[in-house]
Amino acid sequence: MRVARAFNCHLSLADMSQQMSCKELMKVLGLGAVAFVLGVEWLNWLKRRLRDSRGPLKEVLFFPSPQVCVEHLFIRHKHFPCACPLPHGVETSFSRLLVHLLSARVSLDLCVFSFSHMELSRAILLLHKQGVVVRVVTDRDYMTITGSQIGALRKAGICVRHEMSSAVHMHHKFALVDSRKLITGSLNWTLTAVQSNKENVMVTEEPELVGPYQQEFQKLWEANDPANHKPQYTNGQLNIKTCKDK
Amino acid sequence: MRVARAFNCHLSLADMSQQMSCKELMKVLGLGAVAFVLGVEWLNWLKRRLRDSRGPLKEVLFFPSPQVCVEHLFIRHKHFPCACPLPHGVETSFSRLLVHLLSARVSLDLCVFSFSHMELSRAILLLHKQGVVVRVVTDRDYMTITGSQIGALRKAGICVRHEMSSAVHMHHKFALVDSRKLITGSLNWTLTAVQSNKENVMVTEEPELVGPYQQEFQKLWEANDPANHKPQYTNGQLNIKTCKDK
Repeated sequence: MRVARAFNCHLSLADMSQQMSCKELMKVLGLGAVAFVLGVEWLNWLKRRLRDSRGPLKEVLFFPSPQVCVEHLFIRHKHFPCACPLPHGVETSFSRLLVHLLSARVSLDLCVFSFSHMELSRAILLLHKQGVVVRVVTDRDYMTITGSQIGALRKAGICVRHEMSSAVHMHHKFALVDSRKLITGSLNWTLTAVQSNKENVMVTEEPELVGPYQQEFQKLWEANDPANHKPQYTNGQLNIKTCKDK
Repeated sequence: MRVARAFNCHLSLADMSQQMSCKELMKVLGLGAVAFVLGVEWLNWLKRRLRDSRGPLKEVLFFPSPQVCVEHLFIRHKHFPCACPLPHGVETSFSRLLVHLLSARVSLDLCVFSFSHMELSRAILLLHKQGVVVRVVTDRDYMTITGSQIGALRKAGICVRHEMSSAVHMHHKFALVDSRKLITGSLNWTLTAVQSNKENVMVTEEPELVGPYQQEFQKLWEANDPANHKPQYTNGQLNIKTCKDK
């Protein structure tokens, strides 16, 4: 009985489609497409509402972080054959830090006291290569210590400014991703800090926190513009490097 | 005409009060008192609602901070006669930091790499004297440098634990006030950091941020319990100090 009903139904639908003119069919298909688009839009709206109800991103990372392979964060091939001996597919505080940094699409403003970590330097160079506008403010004394990556950044064309006063340390350790995500804490960008020390990093998109740090960065960026300072000479050589702003 | 009406009204009210019995007067006064209390409660509720609508406390402080008199934060006499030559009545990043620390009523958990600032030490000692349970975790190497206040805290009976491993730096710089307010940033508790360096401190009551830091403190507190570590001797002398937990 059920089969017969289904058959009748099938027949009547087939008849309908035969009876429908091409114009009507187009109408039905058009309305279906509109309904589909509206459905997708509604789902996106629902997703945004759910995310907004949790509030802006707030994440806390603690260090030291165990050493794991982070190669997949730099080279995003689907089947990336990494043969290194480190553990793979493990999420750590350091890999989360890298993920947040590499999420930059427009700009990265970095204010860091000490910067000698190779992988973090690689991340910054990659962003610069991808067209992200990178600006760095660092400490005058610590930028020249052994292993500092500041030279590598400058060599690649990244604009770096340093604290002009030798009596003051630029001791901040924060980054601003696309002017909307703040990464800040006690962590200097060194291997010891990442792998050995007890450190903390907070990642937030809370506008009330991001705003003041963005203003502080801009203040330091302008205050340490070499164009506003008299060049200083040591042994007859100019010791303030200039950079080409983007 | 208006004066006459007001006069009549005044007369009738006077008559009413004369006609009211003592019992009725008490009723009116009682109702008035209830209305007043309800009004005050409603205003407090409105205040709380307005505060809640702004979300939990979020404050960012940048350093260096200009040197001003902070004596009034320690001694809260109404007419405190401070004769020091520093500017008075000025709010700075440092005075805000002190205000937040001195707001502790129950507990203060402090995790700080380097601690030599005299005024900050004074604040911690005052809280301890007032009965606030203070716990400090610090760095093994930096707690013995010249000017360190760790000895003064221990001498006053405050329980201090230090990072047990000599290969690791306890590089955090955060404090938890009453387990609900987080103070964290790049600032070590030194005079150079407060008065000279470019530093940042964030103060927040956001539970999603306070929670992880409270857990981290507890983890470090337990991990560095001298009772769980073998005593180490240098030149025949015990070099791990024990403390009496509260």
